[in-house]
Amino acid sequence: MKLVQMDFRYTGPFGQEMAEAMQELAESISKEPGFLWKIWTENKENQEAGGIYMFADEESAKKYVAMHTARLKQFGIEQVNAKYFDVNVPLSKIDNGPV
Amino acid sequence: MKLVQMDFRYTGPFGQEMAEAMQELAESISKEPGFLWKIWTENKENQEAGGIYMFADEESAKKYVAMHTARLKQFGIEQVNAKYFDVNVPLSKIDNGPV
Repeated sequence: MKLVQMDFRYTGPFGQEMAEAMQELAESISKEPGFLWKIWTENKENQEAGGIYMFADEESAKKYVAMHTARLKQFGIEQVNAKYFDVNVPLSKIDNGPV
Repeated sequence: MKLVQMDFRYTGPFGQEMAEAMQELAESISKEPGFLWKIWTENKENQEAGGIYMFADEESAKKYVAMHTARLKQFGIEQVNAKYFDVNVPLSKIDNGPV
């Protein structure tokens, strides 16, 4: 398992409007190789958005991040922060983490 | 719901040793007000660690981050990155996100 946290500057739409605008994108993401899940994140006040992703392995995670970063550039988002992490499963289980 | 991503420079222990060293801390975190869950993150290669947290509301999230940042300082961790996000539930559900 590999967790990826991505975030970037984002000016909207947020909330329900974002959900409607990005439904097809979410459906396509669910079919990416090695993809397990994504929590979609947004912060209207700070004008940021991103996602917490879980992938089956590091290779899938890196391929996805390269593809998604290029796609975000097409939307005008030049700077994307992406960090990769392993999950500490025993500690996460103590804290009810969905792992 | 409020999601918090925290990360910081961390030199170990990692993996099972980390799990043993921080079991009591994980148990105490599970009892914090408004706490829902935490995924414990670690990256030995990049010497980073942190967590993805879900809280019931923003107030609980902010109180926790202030407390935990002060605690990390006692462990010698001076710089902590913390970002707060709302969760886009419809999009997360499409992508099997645990929300």
